[in-house]
Amino acid sequence: MSWNSFGHLLRFTTWGESHGPALGAVVDGCPPGLPLSEAHIQPFLDKRRPGQSRFTTQRQEPDQVRILSGVFEGRTTGTPISLLIENTDQRSKDYGDIAERYRPGHADYTYDAKYGIRDYRGGGRSSARETAARVAAGAVARVILGESIRIRGYLVELGGEAIDRTRFDDAAIDANPFFCPDPAAADRWATALDAARKDGSSLGAVVEVVATGVPVGLGAPLYAKLDQELASAMMSINAVKGVEIGDGFAAARLRGEDNADPMRLGADGRPVFLSNHAGGILGGISTGQDVIVRLAIKPTSSILTPVPSITRAGAEVDVLTKGRHDPCVGIRAAPVAEAMMALVLADQLLLDRAQCPRNGS
Amino acid sequence: MSWNSFGHLLRFTTWGESHGPALGAVVDGCPPGLPLSEAHIQPFLDKRRPGQSRFTTQRQEPDQVRILSGVFEGRTTGTPISLLIENTDQRSKDYGDIAERYRPGHADYTYDAKYGIRDYRGGGRSSARETAARVAAGAVARVILGESIRIRGYLVELGGEAIDRTRFDDAAIDANPFFCPDPAAADRWATALDAARKDGSSLGAVVEVVATGVPVGLGAPLYAKLDQELASAMMSINAVKGVEIGDGFAAARLRGEDNADPMRLGADGRPVFLSNHAGGILGGISTGQDVIVRLAIKPTSSILTPVPSITRAGAEVDVLTKGRHDPCVGIRAAPVAEAMMALVLADQLLLDRAQCPRNGS
Amino acid sequence: MSWNSFGHLLRFTTWGESHGPALGAVVDGCPPGLPLSEAHIQPFLDKRRPGQSRFTTQRQEPDQVRILSGVFEGRTTGTPISLLIENTDQRSKDYGDIAERYRPGHADYTYDAKYGIRDYRGGGRSSARETAARVAAGAVARVILGESIRIRGYLVELGGEAIDRTRFDDAAIDANPFFCPDPAAADRWATALDAARKDGSSLGAVVEVVATGVPVGLGAPLYAKLDQELASAMMSINAVKGVEIGDGFAAARLRGEDNADPMRLGADGRPVFLSNHAGGILGGISTGQDVIVRLAIKPTSSILTPVPSITRAGAEVDVLTKGRHDPCVGIRAAPVAEAMMALVLADQLLLDRAQCPRNGS
Amino acid sequence: MSWNSFGHLLRFTTWGESHGPALGAVVDGCPPGLPLSEAHIQPFLDKRRPGQSRFTTQRQEPDQVRILSGVFEGRTTGTPISLLIENTDQRSKDYGDIAERYRPGHADYTYDAKYGIRDYRGGGRSSARETAARVAAGAVARVILGESIRIRGYLVELGGEAIDRTRFDDAAIDANPFFCPDPAAADRWATALDAARKDGSSLGAVVEVVATGVPVGLGAPLYAKLDQELASAMMSINAVKGVEIGDGFAAARLRGEDNADPMRLGADGRPVFLSNHAGGILGGISTGQDVIVRLAIKPTSSILTPVPSITRAGAEVDVLTKGRHDPCVGIRAAPVAEAMMALVLADQLLLDRAQCPRNGS
Repeated sequence: MSWNSFGHLLRFTTWGESHGPALGAVVDGCPPGLPLSEAHIQPFLDKRRPGQSRFTTQRQEPDQVRILSGVFEGRTTGTPISLLIENTDQRSKDYGDIAERYRPGHADYTYDAKYGIRDYRGGGRSSARETAARVAAGAVARVILGESIRIRGYLVELGGEAIDRTRFDDAAIDANPFFCPDPAAADRWATALDAARKDGSSLGAVVEVVATGVPVGLGAPLYAKLDQELASAMMSINAVKGVEIGDGFAAARLRGEDNADPMRLGADGRPVFLSNHAGGILGGISTGQDVIVRLAIKPTSSILTPVPSITRAGAEVDVLTKGRHDPCVGIRAAPVAEAMMALVLADQLLLDRAQCPRNGS
Repeated sequence: MSWNSFGHLLRFTTWGESHGPALGAVVDGCPPGLPLSEAHIQPFLDKRRPGQSRFTTQRQEPDQVRILSGVFEGRTTGTPISLLIENTDQRSKDYGDIAERYRPGHADYTYDAKYGIRDYRGGGRSSARETAARVAAGAVARVILGESIRIRGYLVELGGEAIDRTRFDDAAIDANPFFCPDPAAADRWATALDAARKDGSSLGAVVEVVATGVPVGLGAPLYAKLDQELASAMMSINAVKGVEIGDGFAAARLRGEDNADPMRLGADGRPVFLSNHAGGILGGISTGQDVIVRLAIKPTSSILTPVPSITRAGAEVDVLTKGRHDPCVGIRAAPVAEAMMALVLADQLLLDRAQCPRNGS
Repeated sequence: MSWNSFGHLLRFTTWGESHGPALGAVVDGCPPGLPLSEAHIQPFLDKRRPGQSRFTTQRQEPDQVRILSGVFEGRTTGTPISLLIENTDQRSKDYGDIAERYRPGHADYTYDAKYGIRDYRGGGRSSARETAARVAAGAVARVILGESIRIRGYLVELGGEAIDRTRFDDAAIDANPFFCPDPAAADRWATALDAARKDGSSLGAVVEVVATGVPVGLGAPLYAKLDQELASAMMSINAVKGVEIGDGFAAARLRGEDNADPMRLGADGRPVFLSNHAGGILGGISTGQDVIVRLAIKPTSSILTPVPSITRAGAEVDVLTKGRHDPCVGIRAAPVAEAMMALVLADQLLLDRAQCPRNGS
Repeated sequence: MSWNSFGHLLRFTTWGESHGPALGAVVDGCPPGLPLSEAHIQPFLDKRRPGQSRFTTQRQEPDQVRILSGVFEGRTTGTPISLLIENTDQRSKDYGDIAERYRPGHADYTYDAKYGIRDYRGGGRSSARETAARVAAGAVARVILGESIRIRGYLVELGGEAIDRTRFDDAAIDANPFFCPDPAAADRWATALDAARKDGSSLGAVVEVVATGVPVGLGAPLYAKLDQELASAMMSINAVKGVEIGDGFAAARLRGEDNADPMRLGADGRPVFLSNHAGGILGGISTGQDVIVRLAIKPTSSILTPVPSITRAGAEVDVLTKGRHDPCVGIRAAPVAEAMMALVLADQLLLDRAQCPRNGS
């Protein structure tokens, strides 16, 4: 089964392979009357675009998005929005190796075992290029969310080296090639990643995404919990191996009274929380605090270090993967995770409005 | 929005509140002709049942399941299977406190904010009693999976104290009140949990679930990835704050060549993996290795230690929660997580059979 | 596959067989805070209840509904509403005949061919008793719709004998055993149906359902068109063989200018239509006029007249079906079709509110 | 809400407006390894293509389809198949009239009322051009169904003039511009339609679609009945006002014994039906006989005869619609209805295989 759709009321479907003519997304269920043009989308694609530093793949893709439907005179019409991104830098080369050899850590073996066929060129459907379609769809979600909800993704760990949270500087995030909020850590990461690349190796990372301004009440008690939707969204991104909300795994090591977020009344008489171990979600429903998600991203599987593997025909080989690969796929995962956060929140906003039309939401 | 359903082809819907007359699940899409009676379900409910040791709530619920439909002469008919569990030990008491005071770490505040109304008796819909319905549904999923797929859930950490993996003893899991595979750790956990309980506190835990015998090929590349489905399933369980697959967050600290699972040919000429950092899933599709998931469960929020909070009416109070509560909800989460693993795998088995009917699957 | 669910945001799932212990529905997605008790549901079940005239089956079922969840202190909480109806009059008799012989016009053969097993007692899952669950769910939908939307189902044809529309009397509908708005036609139908019953035969019918007060804007352009949802809803009722909207098949015989519904401005300056050939739906979206659906219901298949058939074992036989059967299942289809109309409209109301939150809807 | 998707396991999503740059469909869930190229799809698009006789719109669209994903070396890979059709003949003209005046019988008023905005150029999303995307998707479904299932759509009535079934000639269907199996009727239709066109009027039609070779067992008892899925599919096509299965509305006028399809054993010992009033479906499940659906299509709303209407600004006007319109949209509905039949059957085939894996299906 291959449902390539995500979302309930705001639902997007992506399609496309790494080396096909194009890839894209169809975003369905968008409310009408919202301002939308390529200019709302392109900046986010540019952020995700490869080839912008020596720490990402050197594949050159302009990733120019075209809106093919669903917008009229600069506004959404409520009909499906088709987004198209052409592939331009599919290098013509001999893929014989990839076609026959299962790259360890890749989907090559499982695709073949499941489907009996696979588009092996550049990883086909399992290529990280698919995430360009998500980022484009996410930009539409941001328009739905509006200005009051702000979403920020950044790396908090690379190659096992964590940032120092006391040095967290929001302004630093876009000022280094790692989306790193701690400039000192960014320097160390550059050194470590250069070394790994020279060794023909790769590094993993931990991405954190925070949404500020999320109203209280998004989500549902069970099976459509906000944290569940976020876990599903983040784990759908390639190379993600773990997801946590708020304190996450660390919460399992706290005592009850330390994990509880005390409540008090703010100066305006509205509830305030004195801490946010919960990551902005209680009982599957947003509390109004920052919604915080972290995702663990494994080191890139395409490395120059040989690893024992087998061929399609059933021979034992050692596989090393040449080509233009990100030495740490976690870096470009930050804008992708932001997009998924936006898509989940916009979907939940519509769902909440349908069932619980409070205060004119 | 409150979709209380989970699954694509094998889809179950749960209903019921802690202190209503009953709770239950409707399991839809089950293949016909499978043997099913209450005797297939009850043992799993018994495992999850409260009041079996001093480490779980003393609420006494027989949790007797009744099959109301979908089975004829001991076999499934392919029509929806309605499972009913009556609530018998709803203590009549004054819930005035819970009704008015938001218990920190609970869904009280968010439910009220979203719905404007909530069944506060025993936590209502957000009570862990809902998991009985999942366990019952999971038992049906196990019948679909058959004998060749074995699912095992156990605790690997409690209150920050991890097991020693070198002492892993499968037989020990059911021989202590913690589903703990390391008897020495179980002893330490008993001491720690007794102490926490006496302090009016609670502890968190990490549960691991392993499925053995999963065929290669379950899952899909994107948005219906096997790991995504598992993350969604596990995060839908109350009190879960994190989910990881295989090495999970630790994978983010490995180098590419250390995280790759090398492949070789087995004695029978079939592919074998020499390690399982991936947790049995590559590219969203099962590899045939053990599928491994871990979930982080926060400490029980209902504690006797007072925590600052507010009332519905907008006054500041300190809240402590009396009553019969699990000092560590993570313990009884083990059979629940097993059930969710079974439900995801059975659903994926049907999906795979539909799209990729290989070798008579 | 056996998805027994219907609806998008307001979604209900039914379960239960004719001769099992009970049947029921789980209604999910209901907005919170609405008044709901058994008293809101029972009157609709009573209308559908068998044994109220000589023209329906003599099976005696009190069809008492119980609400098991989702309601607290008389109001919906937004959590799933479980509705249970016990079966009390399952006559103990020898079903050997039905078990082995495929009744013509029934699902016996197709169920066996598909599932290899079936609960043959009273038709099992294919029994019209399942419609009790729909009627109960429909009563919840009516509460969501509120007083301003009125839904009315009635027969316009029985045994090929149509009503005279010039004699349409709304008050007559509940004053005869046929939900017939034309008393003179009701008399003729009584005579015809008595004759058919004496002959061991049965008659078909055409039911019309009209919803008044439906706001403009419900539905969607394609694949979720309001007329499509209604067609799906009505065709899901047993024995229905055709569905039409507005003029339906007669519209295919009109010229363009005769089928067009002219528009003018009403005294209040709001648009009015001068006719309603469209049945209240244009482009899949409600116009604000009456929404009109008609469904064709085949004659009851269970008749005393022998019809050639075969046995499960592969022998040729003549089958006649004794027992307590409606000589015209179309009669009791009227309250069922009303329920389905209510369920579709309530679902669409929520969907519309989510995407297009106009004027405080 | 605007879900533009259809299907459960084989699910397609269409997008695009009449006068946008392109339109298309994403077909998801297709089994892998099937032969697929543009050559499998183009012939069906050519059949639906406008401008092939004086009885269809003179808009000239080559309707060349491109496969952008999901196919590798001529075979499906199991990943989503993106189909793109460019719009080439969007005449640049003044749409001021359509923008401001609500064309009677069109979606203009309801779109504006629902969305507050609409792409009025050529009908935008409500244009019949959308059906090109369905026809392309339907061609993929045909590949899944294989050679053994044959689907045939044709007109049985135009302008109230029915064919003579005794003259039914399969070979005639493609030999006249009406997909009419009765050449004598085709002549009469030509005369009638020419006259209607000269009068500035339009005519309706009834289309019949028959699927031969459908295996027994497709469908499900309730809410996913095969007839329900077909009703939903057909009613989703623009201008369709009624759907019937088998004898349909005529069945409501038959007596029980006349409507029953007797069964006997064939020469090969397998069950045979002696008639097919049921249209190949009993209890929602296919019987193995021909599956027969008929749809009523209203006369084209775009006519040269003025009809009273109103403007967006709230003035009363008389509207007549110039431009290139089909005088009978029912004609080109035949290939569209064929496509929808193929899509429903292919989806049901996968669903059935998942739940009921009989005899190696």
